[in-house]
Amino acid sequence: MARNNGKRSRKKGLSPGTLMHVGEKKVEKTRITVIDYDEKTFLEKEIQAIEECFPFKDTSTVTWINVDGVHDAAVIEKLGGYFNLHPLILEDIMTTSQRPKMEDLGCEAIYVVMRMIDFDAERGQITSEQLSLVFGRNYVISFQEKPGDCFDPIRERIRNGKGRIRKMGPDYLAYALIDAIVDHYFQLLEQLGEKIEGLEDSLVTDPKQELLHQIHGLKREMIFLRKSVWPLREVISGLQRAESPLIRETTDIFLRDVYDHTIQVIDSVETFRDMLSGMLETYLSSVSNRMNEVMKVLTIIATIFIPLGFLAGIYGMNFKFMPELEWRWGYFLVIGLMISAGLGMVIYFKKKKWM
Amino acid sequence: MARNNGKRSRKKGLSPGTLMHVGEKKVEKTRITVIDYDEKTFLEKEIQAIEECFPFKDTSTVTWINVDGVHDAAVIEKLGGYFNLHPLILEDIMTTSQRPKMEDLGCEAIYVVMRMIDFDAERGQITSEQLSLVFGRNYVISFQEKPGDCFDPIRERIRNGKGRIRKMGPDYLAYALIDAIVDHYFQLLEQLGEKIEGLEDSLVTDPKQELLHQIHGLKREMIFLRKSVWPLREVISGLQRAESPLIRETTDIFLRDVYDHTIQVIDSVETFRDMLSGMLETYLSSVSNRMNEVMKVLTIIATIFIPLGFLAGIYGMNFKFMPELEWRWGYFLVIGLMISAGLGMVIYFKKKKWM
Amino acid sequence: MARNNGKRSRKKGLSPGTLMHVGEKKVEKTRITVIDYDEKTFLEKEIQAIEECFPFKDTSTVTWINVDGVHDAAVIEKLGGYFNLHPLILEDIMTTSQRPKMEDLGCEAIYVVMRMIDFDAERGQITSEQLSLVFGRNYVISFQEKPGDCFDPIRERIRNGKGRIRKMGPDYLAYALIDAIVDHYFQLLEQLGEKIEGLEDSLVTDPKQELLHQIHGLKREMIFLRKSVWPLREVISGLQRAESPLIRETTDIFLRDVYDHTIQVIDSVETFRDMLSGMLETYLSSVSNRMNEVMKVLTIIATIFIPLGFLAGIYGMNFKFMPELEWRWGYFLVIGLMISAGLGMVIYFKKKKWM
Amino acid sequence: MARNNGKRSRKKGLSPGTLMHVGEKKVEKTRITVIDYDEKTFLEKEIQAIEECFPFKDTSTVTWINVDGVHDAAVIEKLGGYFNLHPLILEDIMTTSQRPKMEDLGCEAIYVVMRMIDFDAERGQITSEQLSLVFGRNYVISFQEKPGDCFDPIRERIRNGKGRIRKMGPDYLAYALIDAIVDHYFQLLEQLGEKIEGLEDSLVTDPKQELLHQIHGLKREMIFLRKSVWPLREVISGLQRAESPLIRETTDIFLRDVYDHTIQVIDSVETFRDMLSGMLETYLSSVSNRMNEVMKVLTIIATIFIPLGFLAGIYGMNFKFMPELEWRWGYFLVIGLMISAGLGMVIYFKKKKWM
Amino acid sequence: MARNNGKRSRKKGLSPGTLMHVGEKKVEKTRITVIDYDEKTFLEKEIQAIEECFPFKDTSTVTWINVDGVHDAAVIEKLGGYFNLHPLILEDIMTTSQRPKMEDLGCEAIYVVMRMIDFDAERGQITSEQLSLVFGRNYVISFQEKPGDCFDPIRERIRNGKGRIRKMGPDYLAYALIDAIVDHYFQLLEQLGEKIEGLEDSLVTDPKQELLHQIHGLKREMIFLRKSVWPLREVISGLQRAESPLIRETTDIFLRDVYDHTIQVIDSVETFRDMLSGMLETYLSSVSNRMNEVMKVLTIIATIFIPLGFLAGIYGMNFKFMPELEWRWGYFLVIGLMISAGLGMVIYFKKKKWM
Repeated sequence: MARNNGKRSRKKGLSPGTLMHVGEKKVEKTRITVIDYDEKTFLEKEIQAIEECFPFKDTSTVTWINVDGVHDAAVIEKLGGYFNLHPLILEDIMTTSQRPKMEDLGCEAIYVVMRMIDFDAERGQITSEQLSLVFGRNYVISFQEKPGDCFDPIRERIRNGKGRIRKMGPDYLAYALIDAIVDHYFQLLEQLGEKIEGLEDSLVTDPKQELLHQIHGLKREMIFLRKSVWPLREVISGLQRAESPLIRETTDIFLRDVYDHTIQVIDSVETFRDMLSGMLETYLSSVSNRMNEVMKVLTIIATIFIPLGFLAGIYGMNFKFMPELEWRWGYFLVIGLMISAGLGMVIYFKKKKWM
Repeated sequence: MARNNGKRSRKKGLSPGTLMHVGEKKVEKTRITVIDYDEKTFLEKEIQAIEECFPFKDTSTVTWINVDGVHDAAVIEKLGGYFNLHPLILEDIMTTSQRPKMEDLGCEAIYVVMRMIDFDAERGQITSEQLSLVFGRNYVISFQEKPGDCFDPIRERIRNGKGRIRKMGPDYLAYALIDAIVDHYFQLLEQLGEKIEGLEDSLVTDPKQELLHQIHGLKREMIFLRKSVWPLREVISGLQRAESPLIRETTDIFLRDVYDHTIQVIDSVETFRDMLSGMLETYLSSVSNRMNEVMKVLTIIATIFIPLGFLAGIYGMNFKFMPELEWRWGYFLVIGLMISAGLGMVIYFKKKKWM
Repeated sequence: MARNNGKRSRKKGLSPGTLMHVGEKKVEKTRITVIDYDEKTFLEKEIQAIEECFPFKDTSTVTWINVDGVHDAAVIEKLGGYFNLHPLILEDIMTTSQRPKMEDLGCEAIYVVMRMIDFDAERGQITSEQLSLVFGRNYVISFQEKPGDCFDPIRERIRNGKGRIRKMGPDYLAYALIDAIVDHYFQLLEQLGEKIEGLEDSLVTDPKQELLHQIHGLKREMIFLRKSVWPLREVISGLQRAESPLIRETTDIFLRDVYDHTIQVIDSVETFRDMLSGMLETYLSSVSNRMNEVMKVLTIIATIFIPLGFLAGIYGMNFKFMPELEWRWGYFLVIGLMISAGLGMVIYFKKKKWM
Repeated sequence: MARNNGKRSRKKGLSPGTLMHVGEKKVEKTRITVIDYDEKTFLEKEIQAIEECFPFKDTSTVTWINVDGVHDAAVIEKLGGYFNLHPLILEDIMTTSQRPKMEDLGCEAIYVVMRMIDFDAERGQITSEQLSLVFGRNYVISFQEKPGDCFDPIRERIRNGKGRIRKMGPDYLAYALIDAIVDHYFQLLEQLGEKIEGLEDSLVTDPKQELLHQIHGLKREMIFLRKSVWPLREVISGLQRAESPLIRETTDIFLRDVYDHTIQVIDSVETFRDMLSGMLETYLSSVSNRMNEVMKVLTIIATIFIPLGFLAGIYGMNFKFMPELEWRWGYFLVIGLMISAGLGMVIYFKKKKWM
Repeated sequence: MARNNGKRSRKKGLSPGTLMHVGEKKVEKTRITVIDYDEKTFLEKEIQAIEECFPFKDTSTVTWINVDGVHDAAVIEKLGGYFNLHPLILEDIMTTSQRPKMEDLGCEAIYVVMRMIDFDAERGQITSEQLSLVFGRNYVISFQEKPGDCFDPIRERIRNGKGRIRKMGPDYLAYALIDAIVDHYFQLLEQLGEKIEGLEDSLVTDPKQELLHQIHGLKREMIFLRKSVWPLREVISGLQRAESPLIRETTDIFLRDVYDHTIQVIDSVETFRDMLSGMLETYLSSVSNRMNEVMKVLTIIATIFIPLGFLAGIYGMNFKFMPELEWRWGYFLVIGLMISAGLGMVIYFKKKKWM
């Protein structure tokens, strides 16, 4: 779980609100891009000095400031200071192990933290990144840990002026970003679902221990996914209930929609968990079944041949006076006895359905 | 779970409300039928062009428009547009992996999604289809993924004017459709119940591994069924609590009735789950019991004959000077010793209740 | 579970409220008895034609109409029609797989469904029967599936005018009937409790597989009992909260009392479930313990005698040149060696606490 | 569970409120003592005739009437009648298998049932006794099943006039009695805790089956304890919320205190349950670990010596023509071969970490 | 659990509010230090006589009185008396097994109990200490069981006047102390997390029984940790909801922040629990896997060599007339037969995938 609590302890004892990056540093340099638009105008640029953002604060257009990299306290502090954000919010932005949550900062702004999840096919592991959103009357600021996100289709829609996005306010933009992340969860779940189905097939055909590790691995991913997704429900219903002037009534139905999607994601995660537990049981009983088969063979062989071997041993004894040894047909009698004893046992086992 | 999340990822990045079919395409061509009735008049026809439905919108009669096939965005959009449905609702109708839910669209209409479940006896698997219902002041529109449903008795009742259905409004029709689906669940549960009872009997008489797979299969069906049925409870209690003018007071008692049925369905699903878990335990302990019996036989045989074999081995040694070998009754003494040792062990095992 | 969902499917597609018996038919002919009383008068008679009940509807006395057998739609319909009961209520009365529930039918009447449970000692199984109660301003109608119930002491009390029952209204009578059923649960629980205690003792003294089946059987009975008892809690608290003029204030304390009893029944059922789970664990570990003991004996015998047998085998070889065979004391040396090796292993096992 | 439902069935069919003792009769003769006090006066006496209590009803002093033995309906009825208690309350007092509960009997009195738990060190079992408390404006009546309780320190405090008890009302006295019982739970938990720790140590050093029975025994005691303690929480929070004039505001903080203690007791019970479950797992895996060790030794011995024995068997064959038998060094070669095969297998097992 | 309920029983029967230390005595002499500050002034001193604290009560500065050691009733009583604390609060302070809780003592003061947790690396065990906080209009009193805490950074911040602490009131100081403790939990969780990850690696490479004990040990620590952390959530949300004038509005956001941290701690504890359960399963199936491998080798060896040994035994018999023994190639035929039988079985096992 080091991926979660990182080096938080480094920060112990500092005054609350002291800005210091907690978590893995995932990018070298902070990169800031601005997209500014209304129904008619559109502007997109990458920013060099943080001050370039400031003019956008009081325009009537919607401004989306995207910050890639949250390790640089100076940048976060300057931006936060200009947009009037409480130091504790800035601290949360820089501490990249937040649980998804939503905070209504009065009439000024709303703060949302989520986890952006990706599946690293190479390492076969889920990776996650913290996304912080702050949106106010006419701006949205998004903080990501590193470049690369699932927002490109949104950028494209804004550029092209397709859909309703250019006509709506920053609350709709914030919704669109949240929706993009939740949609991305579905993609992840499809990948995991395929992996689970693959495993399920192998389970029947060839139950190797390797599978066990994979099932346990997937179970752990589910624990992890669950931690990211469950609180999201409260986050979005928090947005729905927020009596903030920042969320227009027209956005309500969209929030309800993304809420439904979140429930569906949770549902799938729970179903996957149930399926994995079932698979574990199947695996264990397959293995024990195989073992039982092996043991049965041993039992049958040993149970038949040990008594027979004893019989042979008797007539291998070197006593001077053993009448049977002298008999003409002694040998054949014993062989006959052995065969009938063996057959008797085989029949007994067959009757008991052990063979 | 591919059956649930289908190809949702294909849609990732599109503007919310963009119409695009998500899910398996189950029918080639959309088919629309209209039933229009009041206490005295009755009209039923299949429609070719979507516009034929429009005149029914403002009549005082009740109109039931049934759409089989939701893959054609053009049809859904035209119909939805005429009946004033929000794009997100249309999107939900076309995304056939919705969780059962109910949405009050203001005074205009109420939207309900449910899952219509069927048991494919051939593949021994539950199949499910999404049913979307929209009902307004004087119409009900039902969207199904493919032709074939459990509504024929209702159609028959409308045609014949039997029962109260012709005297009631669209809310009663919507109730009747929901009720038909819930009643269909009972039928499915009876089938599953019989299958479970069959399994239970085989479990006692002949615990084969095949049964294990069947139990696990049924458990998975239960997980699936549960996902469809649990949310239904909220859906129907949502309809009961909805303070919509669209639901007349006289329908209340019917909704309460279908609510009770839903609870009963949930109850049965949970009971089945409990029973299946119990059967799993029974199976596992039956198997281990059998194994134990097998092992006991091995133990007894080996424990008796290995020492006896050793005894025979001793007198099979070729030492020059072994006084016993010369004895007149040596051989018979040894045989006697072996028999008494064998009997002694048998008695010991009997006393220990191992035999 | 056939006992629960019976042939409900036969009814699929009929208009809701259509009367048709669903469930096992347990009696040939419906039998109706009437008890009519107030503080001073008392009348008891068996009724032939349903119309004989009607005069009792508007008297100032309390009338208890008891119907044994609910398979005859004509009877139920006539009675229900006269007492103004909604068709859905009548449908519920005739569908004998209802979950316990309570419905406030406005000022007119209150409807309660419960399960009357009995223990069929012969088949060693719990049997259950549906009891429907409808009570109004001055009457109580009880519907049972078959004759025979636990109400005789109440009839006796009414006849004798003992206790407060003759002075109270129909709500008290309804309470008394419910109370009689709940009291009957206690009796059942005592029987089950004794059975469980008996099993527990056998478990320690002689863990046979037979016990396992009995434990699983009891567990299933508990699942079944639970389904009947849990909803009862809501039923009774529903009666307590009902702001109906039909329930006098003086009856409140009695309802609270029966509510407490219900909680105690639920408590006992849960405790029994816990105990049965514990017994299952005990059984399984007892069995595996026995198996381990058996295996240990095999291990010890085999581990001691296989090497010794090998030793004997060596000197049973027929090589021309084996110097030890010629030794004067060779045989005794080998026997001595075998005894000391055997003793050595016994000591080792004792030290390891395997013996 | 006979200890809980006793002979309740004997009472089936009697009119509710009929007084009849249900439960084990634990004492021969009912014994009543009265303690009457205010800040200045103090009186303590044992009462012969029930009427001696009556004068205390309307004094301004606080009167504590303690009744040991609840099997005598005449006594309970007389006392209850004088103090105006509802017959159902009296019935509860005489039915000694009540679940802890609290009932506000209007302005007159408050009724509380609890379980007084003791640890019978001899039988190693928890014993429990029902304590009923009724307190009104100036009296507290406590009903116990048998003499002997944990209230002596309270009696002592009243006698000596130490602490605040003489200055407070009957609600404080009732609180003090409840507090004494809850404190007694702590003592019991300490004893159980020590027992559990003792078991835990034995578990590591010497896992015998005896321990298993003890763990299961303790688990059952926990189930029992839990049933007594969980409802207590509601009882006390019921007292806190009761808007009765009988509970003065100054007593509130004391109730909150005893509520905290109850939570702590529940917490400990749950922790013990968790610990016992953990111990069970530890036990089972210890046992299976031991078994595995034993099996490994068998495997190794058998795997080494069975092939070697076979080798010896070959040269024990009596074929006329076996060239090796004639070789000068045949015997030594075979012995050498056996030693190297044995060593080879030992090395193989060591490498596999099976030895 | 002795660490929790200590010697509470010693106190049984004393009047509630009687001061007496319950718990382990962890320090010899009580040590009191005072820090008094406002934005401009700062004073820190160690106090000899308890009366030295009194003058600080009515100043306008913030006073933090820290008491190390709660076993001395005289000290606690004097201090509590001067600051007007209820005897039950003082009792709680001296009973060092409190569950975390918060009590609003009206306008006067707020009382908070928490557990300060530390990891004793030597004994590999979590140790815990009770911290009681009382804060009023201008003072904070903290009671610890022994010297040594995690508050040094706060002391440092006060001394240096860094951060906002010198400008805020006692509620902020109380918050800062709570925050320091919660931050300390994170540190502990990091340590435990590293330990768990270490275990996880060993689990795959070398599953020894030692690991099992460590996993169970960690599970117990989690039970313990959980008991300390879960109630904390209610404590802090209690502080948030408290409508006390003692908590200024500006402190609200800080409380919300520490609440979020508490949730994260709980989350991590739960995740660790899940992971440990998963590890337990992995361990058990690894062990059983190993055992299975060992057993398979035994089975294969025994199954091959027991029949072969029997064959050799046959030709070791000493019958006078055994024709094969006379054959020229008899020996070689038998050897050939043995080799082909052995190979046949190997091929069979390979085909069955048992080798």
